[in-house]
Amino acid sequence: MRSIMVKCDCLVIIVLVVLMSSHHPPQVSSKKTLSPDHPCQRFVLYYHDILFHGTDGANATSAMATNPTKLGNNSDFGMLVVFDDPVTRDQHLVSPPFARAQGFYFYNKKEYHSAWFAYTLVFNSSQHKGTLNIMGADLMADKTRDLSVVGGTGDFFMNRGIATFQTEEVEGSKYFRLKMDIKLYEC
Amino acid sequence: MRSIMVKCDCLVIIVLVVLMSSHHPPQVSSKKTLSPDHPCQRFVLYYHDILFHGTDGANATSAMATNPTKLGNNSDFGMLVVFDDPVTRDQHLVSPPFARAQGFYFYNKKEYHSAWFAYTLVFNSSQHKGTLNIMGADLMADKTRDLSVVGGTGDFFMNRGIATFQTEEVEGSKYFRLKMDIKLYEC
Amino acid sequence: MRSIMVKCDCLVIIVLVVLMSSHHPPQVSSKKTLSPDHPCQRFVLYYHDILFHGTDGANATSAMATNPTKLGNNSDFGMLVVFDDPVTRDQHLVSPPFARAQGFYFYNKKEYHSAWFAYTLVFNSSQHKGTLNIMGADLMADKTRDLSVVGGTGDFFMNRGIATFQTEEVEGSKYFRLKMDIKLYEC
Repeated sequence: MRSIMVKCDCLVIIVLVVLMSSHHPPQVSSKKTLSPDHPCQRFVLYYHDILFHGTDGANATSAMATNPTKLGNNSDFGMLVVFDDPVTRDQHLVSPPFARAQGFYFYNKKEYHSAWFAYTLVFNSSQHKGTLNIMGADLMADKTRDLSVVGGTGDFFMNRGIATFQTEEVEGSKYFRLKMDIKLYEC
Repeated sequence: MRSIMVKCDCLVIIVLVVLMSSHHPPQVSSKKTLSPDHPCQRFVLYYHDILFHGTDGANATSAMATNPTKLGNNSDFGMLVVFDDPVTRDQHLVSPPFARAQGFYFYNKKEYHSAWFAYTLVFNSSQHKGTLNIMGADLMADKTRDLSVVGGTGDFFMNRGIATFQTEEVEGSKYFRLKMDIKLYEC
Repeated sequence: MRSIMVKCDCLVIIVLVVLMSSHHPPQVSSKKTLSPDHPCQRFVLYYHDILFHGTDGANATSAMATNPTKLGNNSDFGMLVVFDDPVTRDQHLVSPPFARAQGFYFYNKKEYHSAWFAYTLVFNSSQHKGTLNIMGADLMADKTRDLSVVGGTGDFFMNRGIATFQTEEVEGSKYFRLKMDIKLYEC
């Protein structure tokens, strides 16, 4: 008799297990525990911008769509540049492009040069096909600055993450190179 | 005696069940298994852009905010267009608008026409109220191209997804129509 | 004998519990149950825009990168403004800035003033360090309008949410103040 009662208890437990397994409490907001140190995918890339100055059309990869305003002191406030820039896996401009960066930036500080970017990394190789869409402030006064990877397509379907910029080289207003450390946390 | 010991085991199980049900392991990064073929919501829409040429203000729905630069060969590199375009459920411009598309695009290729878009789909009907925010490269050389739906509001609160563009018709620089296949995966 | 059989049942249950706990069904799309009324973080902020008119460079915080087009009736269609605007916790322009808003807006309606924004809230205080990236339509004809917080960095790593705009004050074309109610749902 005793052992039969125990069997009944076990049935109750089975029901309990099934019920609890299927129970997902409604989420009114979402606290994530993603760790900045553990991206699910990462690319260290180099972005090369060669600004058009009227005569170097063969090499140039970007051009001013608007002139600087008169606000600010030589900080190019309001100058908006459209680009289709090569992106390489090492620092050399002449290396085979790994992706292209297509989008725009503009300068937006009165006191010094600082920029804001929105662009798409376009991958079209045997390794990767797809795009990553990125936007945010390029706070040039900081050594490194983080922008948001807000979406992805193709191999990067629905991905999100962080793009960390670091200025590598500046040659007047003709060329600059950024290191872009792309870290994806939703893959 | 034996059966009592079993009862104790069952209690242990109950504790185990409750503990495991409430246990969510910390997520350091997130591997999603969303399937491109199974959106939770989908709209096939048609976007009509009628570019202002100085005298057709009554019909025009977009206008050049910047002129093309001299970079590139008739590819309009750097030309930025602001739009408030009607969006319909079928291909006919005169059909009742289902939404409006508000935002901008610019051309950003030296070799041929290719564009970059950022815009908001604004829904304000009895069926749908709210917005979807979209950005990405419109790689016009490709038959179809994917942009990111990076957020939504109202009926589309916190949604994300993919917008697939396909060019349907081009009438010189006056009119073009895009098919926009909007697929939401986070609803 | 009977009680031993029961013990075996219990083992089966243990296996069952462990199996079901580790079972996560593949997600083909994601139905969220986030509630607009329950953000995980919220800031009510005030955004002050002082448009440069050629002589007030010391106070101005924004400037026109493009002139209005001739499309529309005094609705400034196509006028694009780059800004680096102070953001305060109360309505007073002279209050200590809580953040800066860096980005751009443009007007995009023929019939009346309505705008589209993309910008970064830059936090750099002892309380908060990091950025929030925001884009969407500022449908100025509506009393309140929702834009998307599409990403975050630093203290706001990978956050998403909604930014609700409300116009607070307009002084001609020189100054306007927006209330920005920032509600984060993915924290």
